[in-house]
Amino acid sequence: MNQVQTFELIQDRIQLVEERIIAQSDGHHPELRAALSHLLSSGGKRIRPTVTLLMGEMLEADPDKLINLAAAIEMLHTATLVHDDLIDGALLRRGIPTLNTQWTPAATVLAGDFIFACAAKLASETNSVTVMQMFAETLSIIVNGEITQLFSNWGISHRNDYLKRIYAKTASLFEVATLAAAVLSNFGEDIREAARIYGYQIGMAFQIVDDVLDFTSEQSTVGKPVASDLRQGLITLPAIYYFDAHPDDPDLQLLLQGNNYQEESLTRLAHAISESGAIGEAMNEASQYVDRALEVLKVFPKKPERQSLEDLAKYIVYRDY
Amino acid sequence: MNQVQTFELIQDRIQLVEERIIAQSDGHHPELRAALSHLLSSGGKRIRPTVTLLMGEMLEADPDKLINLAAAIEMLHTATLVHDDLIDGALLRRGIPTLNTQWTPAATVLAGDFIFACAAKLASETNSVTVMQMFAETLSIIVNGEITQLFSNWGISHRNDYLKRIYAKTASLFEVATLAAAVLSNFGEDIREAARIYGYQIGMAFQIVDDVLDFTSEQSTVGKPVASDLRQGLITLPAIYYFDAHPDDPDLQLLLQGNNYQEESLTRLAHAISESGAIGEAMNEASQYVDRALEVLKVFPKKPERQSLEDLAKYIVYRDY
Repeated sequence: MNQVQTFELIQDRIQLVEERIIAQSDGHHPELRAALSHLLSSGGKRIRPTVTLLMGEMLEADPDKLINLAAAIEMLHTATLVHDDLIDGALLRRGIPTLNTQWTPAATVLAGDFIFACAAKLASETNSVTVMQMFAETLSIIVNGEITQLFSNWGISHRNDYLKRIYAKTASLFEVATLAAAVLSNFGEDIREAARIYGYQIGMAFQIVDDVLDFTSEQSTVGKPVASDLRQGLITLPAIYYFDAHPDDPDLQLLLQGNNYQEESLTRLAHAISESGAIGEAMNEASQYVDRALEVLKVFPKKPERQSLEDLAKYIVYRDY
Repeated sequence: MNQVQTFELIQDRIQLVEERIIAQSDGHHPELRAALSHLLSSGGKRIRPTVTLLMGEMLEADPDKLINLAAAIEMLHTATLVHDDLIDGALLRRGIPTLNTQWTPAATVLAGDFIFACAAKLASETNSVTVMQMFAETLSIIVNGEITQLFSNWGISHRNDYLKRIYAKTASLFEVATLAAAVLSNFGEDIREAARIYGYQIGMAFQIVDDVLDFTSEQSTVGKPVASDLRQGLITLPAIYYFDAHPDDPDLQLLLQGNNYQEESLTRLAHAISESGAIGEAMNEASQYVDRALEVLKVFPKKPERQSLEDLAKYIVYRDY
């Protein structure tokens, strides 16, 4: 089963999720509907709702609550992107214009707030206090991670800081997606914990691969400039591996002096990283996360969804790469 | 019993609410604790948690859940203020510097998001799905109201638009405060509805009086320039009454042409409104809301808290005015 088939297994429910997201604007200002449509139109793989639905359906959670949960997860993700893009002044996401290029900063802040509100509402419509609590906790983890990043000093990032950061940024949401899906089922603590671990591991792998792609992709495929992280002074795993191996690289020295505006030097450094063994090392680390995700899947019932979750975990490492 | 005594009745629980708010930053970035402390230090009357606690204690709701609810209400209010002040570029609130004067826009957006997350977490710690749902719905009403205001055209505001706006901005949060407090008690539907009505009525009165004070107060008492609403093109109830009575005022004509930068004309208009019968008419309308709040209080058990809620409703009309 390849990647496309994996997603086809639940394609009609993904459509229900998208419809539920759009329906959140009912009764509100028409511009909000336009904003939600615009944000959904950017496509994306809907990997978070996909993993939510697959986990929940495998564990026989209530289908309607699962749609609410998957929509809540995707909207929470979308709300953080709307505020992030505003903060970063990003012009494109997945190749389409960001909301902040079309709306004023004021309207963009409020659009993000509105999407947060919708996410909270959808989460509350799972009728599970536990899901709500996990959900709110995850939002605070994500935002705390962003604030920590914002207030942190320029310089080499340590591995542990990096891992904490990608947990807050990405893995925490995958983790709550699969854990909450399990909470909506009738399975016990062991299965919940396995679900949480699966989400955590693929979330970590997903962000590491994203950070690798930032070095290896052309602008046209990711819709943003190559080495955009480095340009923002964000030191990701490939850079950490590269820095360990080449501490004396003069372009690196320049960057560490806080000079990320010397385009030529920066491009040379990004190129050096992308051609170095650091890429393979980072991908290897991502694969180890995926391996742990595959390992934990064994405790689940043998069902088509389990196979899909296995395919999806593997796909995370091999997508577009 | 006067206003100060009203608040003294629950002063120690208000302190618990404040401690619970500060505790939300535990385990997060130290700047967040600093931001929460700063925001709390601005004082304010804590009228929202006060009304929450009084209603909940009168109806014998669980004390600890009530503290969570009151803290959630105050944090939701605070989060919207943080984003509002950023959007408006406000420099002062209640006489102390706003967060956006001390933090970058990026950090201020994230601080607001963090406080939203804390509010959602505290609301979920009431362990009531109903409270959570009401809470999320209220957040979407508040934000939708702000977006509607942002996208609305300049010009005379109609009474109905004004009433809708102040419901979204203010009364919706008072309403959910008292309604959710009742939901946490064991009383039935009639008492819940009465609690909701009380919150709604005092919330509407509170905002009308606020809008009157914007015309009648000196800068030093409200910590912002007099007629700040008018300067932002925001037509509030005193202005609506004045416009009805003086449609040919040349300063008004200038304002309606979208010209709110002619300082002399604007000051003259603000002064004319503050000296006109419009102030009394608006205050009279606020009093009618308070009267309805007092009327509905009669269905509640005769307890000290009921007396305090009565005093509080009256205080709303007579504060600082």
